[in-house]
Amino acid sequence: MNTANGETRQSKAIFPNTWNANETLFGGEALKWMDEVAYITATRYTRQKMFTVKIEEIQFKKPAYKVSFVEVIGKVVEVSAVKLKVLVEMFVEDMYSDESGIKAVEGIFVFAALGENRRPQRVRIKE
Amino acid sequence: MNTANGETRQSKAIFPNTWNANETLFGGEALKWMDEVAYITATRYTRQKMFTVKIEEIQFKKPAYKVSFVEVIGKVVEVSAVKLKVLVEMFVEDMYSDESGIKAVEGIFVFAALGENRRPQRVRIKE
Amino acid sequence: MNTANGETRQSKAIFPNTWNANETLFGGEALKWMDEVAYITATRYTRQKMFTVKIEEIQFKKPAYKVSFVEVIGKVVEVSAVKLKVLVEMFVEDMYSDESGIKAVEGIFVFAALGENRRPQRVRIKE
Amino acid sequence: MNTANGETRQSKAIFPNTWNANETLFGGEALKWMDEVAYITATRYTRQKMFTVKIEEIQFKKPAYKVSFVEVIGKVVEVSAVKLKVLVEMFVEDMYSDESGIKAVEGIFVFAALGENRRPQRVRIKE
Amino acid sequence: MNTANGETRQSKAIFPNTWNANETLFGGEALKWMDEVAYITATRYTRQKMFTVKIEEIQFKKPAYKVSFVEVIGKVVEVSAVKLKVLVEMFVEDMYSDESGIKAVEGIFVFAALGENRRPQRVRIKE
Amino acid sequence: MNTANGETRQSKAIFPNTWNANETLFGGEALKWMDEVAYITATRYTRQKMFTVKIEEIQFKKPAYKVSFVEVIGKVVEVSAVKLKVLVEMFVEDMYSDESGIKAVEGIFVFAALGENRRPQRVRIKE
Repeated sequence: MNTANGETRQSKAIFPNTWNANETLFGGEALKWMDEVAYITATRYTRQKMFTVKIEEIQFKKPAYKVSFVEVIGKVVEVSAVKLKVLVEMFVEDMYSDESGIKAVEGIFVFAALGENRRPQRVRIKE
Repeated sequence: MNTANGETRQSKAIFPNTWNANETLFGGEALKWMDEVAYITATRYTRQKMFTVKIEEIQFKKPAYKVSFVEVIGKVVEVSAVKLKVLVEMFVEDMYSDESGIKAVEGIFVFAALGENRRPQRVRIKE
Repeated sequence: MNTANGETRQSKAIFPNTWNANETLFGGEALKWMDEVAYITATRYTRQKMFTVKIEEIQFKKPAYKVSFVEVIGKVVEVSAVKLKVLVEMFVEDMYSDESGIKAVEGIFVFAALGENRRPQRVRIKE
Repeated sequence: MNTANGETRQSKAIFPNTWNANETLFGGEALKWMDEVAYITATRYTRQKMFTVKIEEIQFKKPAYKVSFVEVIGKVVEVSAVKLKVLVEMFVEDMYSDESGIKAVEGIFVFAALGENRRPQRVRIKE
Repeated sequence: MNTANGETRQSKAIFPNTWNANETLFGGEALKWMDEVAYITATRYTRQKMFTVKIEEIQFKKPAYKVSFVEVIGKVVEVSAVKLKVLVEMFVEDMYSDESGIKAVEGIFVFAALGENRRPQRVRIKE
Repeated sequence: MNTANGETRQSKAIFPNTWNANETLFGGEALKWMDEVAYITATRYTRQKMFTVKIEEIQFKKPAYKVSFVEVIGKVVEVSAVKLKVLVEMFVEDMYSDESGIKAVEGIFVFAALGENRRPQRVRIKE
């Protein structure tokens, strides 16, 4: 498992337990997956206790209809001593067509690091 | 059930199935609850098919530790023909203390209305 | 967050992950929500460790069809040194109509208080 | 699979996703399992569309601590043309001891039958 | 609750939260139920900490369509000092017909016992 | 989203809602994730309705302790007109260490293709 490219991926099938009342992917479910991917991406980068302090604007560009897969992809896009930003994108692809996935949702998740006694700590910056 | 005040509420207990690795409320779970509350708030206002187009900045101000309840509250804060904005706040209160809840997370969820054939539609504005 | 009125509310959307085989809200899911609301209501009143000892008769008056929201509301209706009773009602409202919600389920949940070493304790009665 | 004895069983392990804040089985989770077992028991008996109309008093006699299994058992105890009653009992047993399970929860679930157009129907009584 | 016959049973209704994209029971959900039943069966036999070391071939013989119940049944089929084998079978029955259940999935789950410090331990063999 | 390399990935954090009674990842949860990844991998390859017919031996080599991430990876390893085999591996990595992930579980999932009327169909083999 090579995580050196700084990407974390989570592929999901849009099964009925993920649907809203319109039988498309419930946005809250997508947000839950995106937050998990953001958290793993941030932690893999710093190997510190990370917690979300802010989510910058999230855009929902396209619904994920029921006969589709989605792939949630996180990558670190900015790091400083006090915060780390992860771009999370969710792509949707039709189950039965070879067309490329289309971006459905994207957002920036901002993390800080936590040390002993739940105190903020400098973010470890990789050389 | 009086929904005339434009508020939708969802109280939750922070049970272990909602925890992250630090045994506090997982942020993705909070986002899922907030999106459900935002969606109900928006739909109760317009009684149209509503879908999320954007979430403006979400701020995580305070973690929800394990011996606590949270209450997620949504209210419509802005309406125009093309979009409706819902402010969603999550308050956290200690289970065994009478102190008031403290704001833990807040964000603005932006919705548009969908008509027949999944086409955008004017948002119904209440007089 | 004002909990002084003694009411705890939980609004929910009837998404497919809550349905039974008839594609209406599964009764067991409703009971789970009602028990969570009862537990929060009881604990907010006493701020003691509360546990359910009994549920008095629960009546299912109306199913919750799939294009609807429900709101579960708990309030303390009786308190003595040995037990506290919470009335829990679930109202169902059509997603796309402004008609008031209709009572779908109701029941009385009876709690006792637990002290150190899991021993029963007097229920704290508010003046 | 012999269902002739009129019993439906559901064994469960008390994993953390079933716990309340005291790290014992959350009562709402137990109620959800009991309702599912009641529904299967009732339907297996009549092979009609059954729905819950009432739950008679449910008694919680003993908590299910975290290192335990539970077994939920349903049996039909009364049938008439208009309703069918299922007794549901939940037994708890320590994971690492051979002692018999102890009754932790019990209740009576009352069902009616539903015909075409969601109209009530006579309950099919077995000879 | 008599577990002397060495069988552990878990009956389930095929509700929408268990479906895949074809609206039949998702195989992964079936595997989760089978593993829980296998684990309970193995632990009830030895009353030791058991963990899965291997699953021998699992065969999916028949899908579980949406208007059906399934019953997952585990029994110990082989025991030695180093391992214990549990046969797990899942039967599917139509909700509204009295025909016997048909075997849908079966597999052998192999367990070992764990002592203090997470060290392997001899499996306790019943006389 | 490039799926040309034939790999499907699903990264997960080992949160308490995934734990068994020993507070390590519940094997049934791992199997559910592996089956979802296998299904996506198979469908992305053929773009046909795929269903699992068999799982060849699954080996559990290492538990996933609570402070860890796992990554489930699926790749097509064999294709013929009648079946398609997907190797699924689950790697576990410590949250706070840069050491490479270690293989924890692996298995081969075997799929067949389904045409109209739920009839078996030739598997589409890529040139």
